[in-house]
Amino acid sequence: MPDLRKDPIVGRWVIIAKNRAKRPHDSVDGAALRPSGGFCPFCEGHENHTPGEIVAYRQSGTHRDRQGWRVRVVPNKFPALEIEGDLNKRGQGIYDMMRGVGAHEVIIESPKHLVSSTELGHENLREVLWMYRDRLLDLKKDPRLVYGMLFKNVGAAAGASLEHTHSQLIVTPIVPISVVEEINGSLDFYRYRGRCVFCDMVEQELAFDERIVLDSPGFVAFCPFAARFPFETWIVPTEHASHYETLSRGGSEELARVLKRVLEKIETALDRPAYNYIVHTAPFDTHALAHYHWHIEIIPRVTKTAGFEWGTGFYINPVPPEEAATFMRELDNPSQETQEFPTRATG
Amino acid sequence: MPDLRKDPIVGRWVIIAKNRAKRPHDSVDGAALRPSGGFCPFCEGHENHTPGEIVAYRQSGTHRDRQGWRVRVVPNKFPALEIEGDLNKRGQGIYDMMRGVGAHEVIIESPKHLVSSTELGHENLREVLWMYRDRLLDLKKDPRLVYGMLFKNVGAAAGASLEHTHSQLIVTPIVPISVVEEINGSLDFYRYRGRCVFCDMVEQELAFDERIVLDSPGFVAFCPFAARFPFETWIVPTEHASHYETLSRGGSEELARVLKRVLEKIETALDRPAYNYIVHTAPFDTHALAHYHWHIEIIPRVTKTAGFEWGTGFYINPVPPEEAATFMRELDNPSQETQEFPTRATG
Repeated sequence: MPDLRKDPIVGRWVIIAKNRAKRPHDSVDGAALRPSGGFCPFCEGHENHTPGEIVAYRQSGTHRDRQGWRVRVVPNKFPALEIEGDLNKRGQGIYDMMRGVGAHEVIIESPKHLVSSTELGHENLREVLWMYRDRLLDLKKDPRLVYGMLFKNVGAAAGASLEHTHSQLIVTPIVPISVVEEINGSLDFYRYRGRCVFCDMVEQELAFDERIVLDSPGFVAFCPFAARFPFETWIVPTEHASHYETLSRGGSEELARVLKRVLEKIETALDRPAYNYIVHTAPFDTHALAHYHWHIEIIPRVTKTAGFEWGTGFYINPVPPEEAATFMRELDNPSQETQEFPTRATG
Repeated sequence: MPDLRKDPIVGRWVIIAKNRAKRPHDSVDGAALRPSGGFCPFCEGHENHTPGEIVAYRQSGTHRDRQGWRVRVVPNKFPALEIEGDLNKRGQGIYDMMRGVGAHEVIIESPKHLVSSTELGHENLREVLWMYRDRLLDLKKDPRLVYGMLFKNVGAAAGASLEHTHSQLIVTPIVPISVVEEINGSLDFYRYRGRCVFCDMVEQELAFDERIVLDSPGFVAFCPFAARFPFETWIVPTEHASHYETLSRGGSEELARVLKRVLEKIETALDRPAYNYIVHTAPFDTHALAHYHWHIEIIPRVTKTAGFEWGTGFYINPVPPEEAATFMRELDNPSQETQEFPTRATG
């Protein structure tokens, strides 16, 4: 069973997961490395090569762990956390720890061997986003668990070990430090100004119109003012909401369109880079928060490495976000789907 | 001139440094890539291939930017920050920014083309550590600057673009967020318990004796309880001190011995991995702090990638620090120098 351990200085929790050392790669991803062209355990027909299905959207009449699914969720074969048991919170002198109870799931986004979200049809991608919501709603019923972190690794440089398009969900009994920092920081802003900092950002970005990548009625995509990485892009809902799982059916349709278009722009601008995206949302054990606002952060991995930044939180970005946004905004439409795009006058 | 921009949510400052995009690599390092065996601008005799010398320890009678130096400091050819000008602090709606005033220096650790700190003689490495102190003492006279971050990248995977052994110093007009978090966290601990958390860690590590890598009268090296990375190792002075630049002559002699020995152990255990080390020290504009304690964090880069951890602050470490420490502690002595080691009974 993995341990969760807390750094006594900054309060950061770390998972010490010895079982994951068996993995060919030590990064956070779905399963063992599959050489390109080799056997893929995520493809339809190979259902018996993954741990047993948790849930799937399926054609009626088809069965669990058999063909006929559209989006399928399975436990990670090398889980960072395990679902059984109690937390056994305890101290060890000045240190705090608990058992590594939680969930680590893989969301297989297509039965076909596609390698990018941008290859998914609109309804397929919408169902992926809807599955995110379904998993959060299900897992938040467990009183031991307080946070669900949804993310996607694309490309080896971003930590992916399987190319078949998939996302992951890690659900933890603690709130990760980056989320604590965001929530505390946005609460400070709210106390000082009486407004949500994310709502303010959306308003200012639309008004200044320097860093907007894409503007849709329900979502704005922009390169943030203090971008850490070249072409870092955030997708923020225009209506205030703290929890991803409050996404409506209509919201999921629009978000699928926006996410696909933004990823297409990033893929075109940077020639299909490795990237991560991470859904930032409020903890399970909070009600609707006036100061926090869920959003998606997309981080292309175009810089060769960043050991220094990684260790210090001190980022050096050689591409001003205004230039990245201008470049992406002005890209020719790479697909016909763009014509469907609802646009809004800005500025 | 680069910009310093503050993220309005978490208060993280980011350097937007467009000039660095000219670099062959986009990571934080000394200069352009030198293919192995090619021309090295850091070697003795090539002084005119770096920007003009800031300071050096030299044989008497030798001249600036000429041969005869032992440790030499030059401006980074691709600086993340620039030393001239005022800060011009300003707002832009909800955003805060200032000009990227600061220093970005390279400390060339040897006139010979050595590629590891462990190849340096003891007095050479001591002078490197002494130069760190000298540079901090000099740069803290500038009232615009508040923090000096000393670090070393070794190996391409750790962001190094030149193999000739060197360290770097970035001096900023703001305190980096990782330092702010450490200082705030250790202040919380101090307020609650009335003691320095680092002093407590040293005491507990010595008493438990599970994670000690090396134990010397003035410094303890251990793998931290909540290690983020396999074989992560910290070197902490046993006497409380908040500022690195208070290091004594005797302290520099002992630290050189400890650092070399710890790096030898890491190089042996992991077969000369890429790594970063970072000196964590208190800001310039603080007096001696009872709650903060300077130390060095060494981060081997053995995991293939970590895009996810990087973006979230949520780390998964497959190697328990107890196992890493045991392995390093039990390594056969790779050099005779070990015999000189002052040891202390622990436990």
